[in-house]
Amino acid sequence: MPKSSTPSRERIVAGAADMISRRGLSATSIREMAKHAKAPLGSTYHYFPEGKQQLASEAVLYTGDWVARSLRKELEAGPAAGLNAFLALWRKIVVDTDFHAGCPVLAVAIEEPPADDIPPALAAAAEVFEQWEGLLAGSLREHGADDERAAQIATLIVAAVEGTVAMCRAKHSTEPLDRTAAQLQTLIAAAVGG
Amino acid sequence: MPKSSTPSRERIVAGAADMISRRGLSATSIREMAKHAKAPLGSTYHYFPEGKQQLASEAVLYTGDWVARSLRKELEAGPAAGLNAFLALWRKIVVDTDFHAGCPVLAVAIEEPPADDIPPALAAAAEVFEQWEGLLAGSLREHGADDERAAQIATLIVAAVEGTVAMCRAKHSTEPLDRTAAQLQTLIAAAVGG
Repeated sequence: MPKSSTPSRERIVAGAADMISRRGLSATSIREMAKHAKAPLGSTYHYFPEGKQQLASEAVLYTGDWVARSLRKELEAGPAAGLNAFLALWRKIVVDTDFHAGCPVLAVAIEEPPADDIPPALAAAAEVFEQWEGLLAGSLREHGADDERAAQIATLIVAAVEGTVAMCRAKHSTEPLDRTAAQLQTLIAAAVGG
Repeated sequence: MPKSSTPSRERIVAGAADMISRRGLSATSIREMAKHAKAPLGSTYHYFPEGKQQLASEAVLYTGDWVARSLRKELEAGPAAGLNAFLALWRKIVVDTDFHAGCPVLAVAIEEPPADDIPPALAAAAEVFEQWEGLLAGSLREHGADDERAAQIATLIVAAVEGTVAMCRAKHSTEPLDRTAAQLQTLIAAAVGG
């Protein structure tokens, strides 16, 4: 049998990330995530015995990692190049899905946890935001920004891009991304003395 | 009977806004929104005969209006004062709810519409973003920013604050708001020649 008939763990995680980015976490069941990834529910539970929160956490961390890989690579050419790659990646997602998908990390971040504790997926979202902020801040520092300013601009970039993707989805337009991009580029240029 | 025993239309709308800001729209039924506002389901359907999308749209527009009222008032003292009021209002919501609530407009914006058309609540979210951006851009222009820069900064402010509120919720911390605030204040000061 061809290998592709066996759903890989990664394919289920990637499918879950896509689905959460479209619909949010609460509105998505593990059954639907399995179906979306064309995986039997049995294999899904086999890979993720702790259920939905485990799969959602891995989907968030998976998104965190592929974005971080792209960021790390592009940041070698400096913070402006890193920002452009970060923007391009989200622009591609909203355009390719006709404004139906966005960021699963944001989706998980804005859903009230069911109980008073912090569920794994929410903790994963916090971790991913930190990861992206850390990469951007590190690059800004390397290019001459002081610690505080680097940290502030890094947080602003992640927050602004996340918020802008949401605005693009509501407006069915990429104009918000064009506007945000222009201002963030100016800000980076000023911070690194460009 | 005291008037407070009759749930007002506005109380149901405000309750729906709060609930959507916590849980998102798809995961919230009209029955739960009625219960959250302590309103009988009958009165809820009486006020909102078109159901959940109608109530959600009104909740989004209600949020838009109260934020716009505060913005309009504070912007009289200039764009920096407007930004501070905008930030303070979202900070109060995340702190008062122990990071459980955020912005219902963002919540509606990032949920995939069930069909191919644009549902009323999503259209309302786009309208509210435009409203806030318009107020901020108008104030920036009045204080000397050119049209393009005013529009870009206004979009960046709305996007960044929305994204930052989500980051605060994930991290259970207001530090992201402190960082974003500092950078947005600097940006406004530069744009208005401060």
